[in-house]
Amino acid sequence: MNDRLLRACRREVVDCTPIWLMRQAGRYMAEYREVRQKHTILDIIKTPELAVQVTLQPVNAFDLDAAIIFADILPPLEAMGLSLEFVRGEGPVIHNPLRSAADVAALHVPDPRESLGFTMEAIRLARRELDGRIPLIGFSGAPFTLASYAIEGGATRNFVLTKNLMFNHPQPWQELMDKLSALVGDYLKAQAEAGAQALQLFDSWAGALSPGDYRRYVLPYSRRAIQTAQSSEVPLIHFSTETAGILELIKEAGGSVIGVDWRVGLADAWRRLGQDVAIQGNLDPVALFAPLPDLERQVADILAQAGGRPGHIFNLGHGILPSTPVEHVAVLVDMVHEMSRQE
Amino acid sequence: MNDRLLRACRREVVDCTPIWLMRQAGRYMAEYREVRQKHTILDIIKTPELAVQVTLQPVNAFDLDAAIIFADILPPLEAMGLSLEFVRGEGPVIHNPLRSAADVAALHVPDPRESLGFTMEAIRLARRELDGRIPLIGFSGAPFTLASYAIEGGATRNFVLTKNLMFNHPQPWQELMDKLSALVGDYLKAQAEAGAQALQLFDSWAGALSPGDYRRYVLPYSRRAIQTAQSSEVPLIHFSTETAGILELIKEAGGSVIGVDWRVGLADAWRRLGQDVAIQGNLDPVALFAPLPDLERQVADILAQAGGRPGHIFNLGHGILPSTPVEHVAVLVDMVHEMSRQE
Repeated sequence: MNDRLLRACRREVVDCTPIWLMRQAGRYMAEYREVRQKHTILDIIKTPELAVQVTLQPVNAFDLDAAIIFADILPPLEAMGLSLEFVRGEGPVIHNPLRSAADVAALHVPDPRESLGFTMEAIRLARRELDGRIPLIGFSGAPFTLASYAIEGGATRNFVLTKNLMFNHPQPWQELMDKLSALVGDYLKAQAEAGAQALQLFDSWAGALSPGDYRRYVLPYSRRAIQTAQSSEVPLIHFSTETAGILELIKEAGGSVIGVDWRVGLADAWRRLGQDVAIQGNLDPVALFAPLPDLERQVADILAQAGGRPGHIFNLGHGILPSTPVEHVAVLVDMVHEMSRQE
Repeated sequence: MNDRLLRACRREVVDCTPIWLMRQAGRYMAEYREVRQKHTILDIIKTPELAVQVTLQPVNAFDLDAAIIFADILPPLEAMGLSLEFVRGEGPVIHNPLRSAADVAALHVPDPRESLGFTMEAIRLARRELDGRIPLIGFSGAPFTLASYAIEGGATRNFVLTKNLMFNHPQPWQELMDKLSALVGDYLKAQAEAGAQALQLFDSWAGALSPGDYRRYVLPYSRRAIQTAQSSEVPLIHFSTETAGILELIKEAGGSVIGVDWRVGLADAWRRLGQDVAIQGNLDPVALFAPLPDLERQVADILAQAGGRPGHIFNLGHGILPSTPVEHVAVLVDMVHEMSRQE
């Protein structure tokens, strides 16, 4: 088995730097677009055979060091009682977003083994298909990022409604975050039990918060979810973006690996985080559109910043963009392996 | 004259912390909405009497320590030959965005004293109206932020087209940034000559870049514009957002004051920037929606982080939001003055 990723999570020496890409199963691949012509995103997620088919597409096309189960961060909100739809061209929409304390009180905390059982089944199936070739990652959205979708009803620029609940209604905010952290922790743990060999917590929007607000309103809940997930003893990658101002707090919330975006230098980030965690990142997804010499320069810069220390997982700083040239992805994966190979 | 702002720019002792708000003349004020019902944004900007009327609205309503001339960052692009429109509900649109090296070559670098003369006239008029009461700030978008609008044709999430030009076409990128930095520097200098007593360079989107890309593709041009502007000997505030990973580079590009957003702790930012610059910031604009005790807690936290050191200008971390409760703005301004007053 190629266990580079798991070794890097534990900060053990590897033969070369492991790489996987957020949203590696996605629209930049013709094989994925073909499946999407026949099925909605939610259909694929909820049909384990389809989820596994799509999970394996990038793994078969590129020399990646991990698969990540095809799913989305939002189905747990559906399982709690919200009405979720992926609207073409608009992204996810929650048709009944949280608007009152009563809405929060009405949310239930389901058993993810039942209400999100399709993903557990997809994980079991994917593990069989992968047959030990590379590890499989499970994932969940983090409490704050899920809360923002549940409250705003979709993507948002300024998080006005989310922060309004946070600042103005501490009791329902706490109740919401309690419920979300319980579900997220349990969901991650259930994925590990089903066979996920590493977990990633996506707190994509944590960077919208000031350090003080993150510490007060978010950190305790992320920590609780991470502690529950880590009772499975599977390594956890704690990922977020625009967090150059709160890296130390992200680490305090937990995770054996901290994911960072390209807005902070990797060396700088790792120095601040300390050598007792691994680090994942941090190529700008748009760098994949660059001519190959420029892409190579950027990859070399990131590897130089990692400095050959154990515990670096190469990734983009956010999900791969739908219009990314697919041939550059193949080049990137091989480039990272070759340039980082320890003689 | 209330010269707190200018004294803070020079890091001199003040009786209390000066405060102004980005977009302080804006939609959250009924007086502004009334003017906007009769005039487009561009009409107001290009009619000095209207621009001054709107400039003075927040200054008359609140105890602010500076006025900022009503204008927008995009008219310089119009003066260069691009077709600009503010579309209701959509924001600014460039109808003929830059798509080729020939488009870049066709841009001219106008004399801002002529092609943007309406803003110089508004500055002269506003100075007369203010009659020395508080200082007047002039401003410009920074080369990178202007380039992103010129290339994308409007707001963007991922800056794919902008970074494509940057990574893939170094020669037209350099030519574009040369032209923009020449115009921006000259435009700021002309505003100082017309009477602006401080200047702000808005590089709102600089935070989309990695440290390496900022250094390579942006910093030299911002520095050039700032150097030209500062030949007027007027203090310059260098503002950007999402730059917690590149603060040191923002300072390297120049400015007597560095503006930071709420995503980084003010104390942390100032420690990294060093004591030889003043600092502006950094309340989350959404904090203005919070109940007053919570707003007060957040203001107290920022003032505590500034630690009473000379050189702090209080501001939001980005523009005030259109739906902000106007009565909270009045409270904020007085709160900052009272809580920071040196006995």
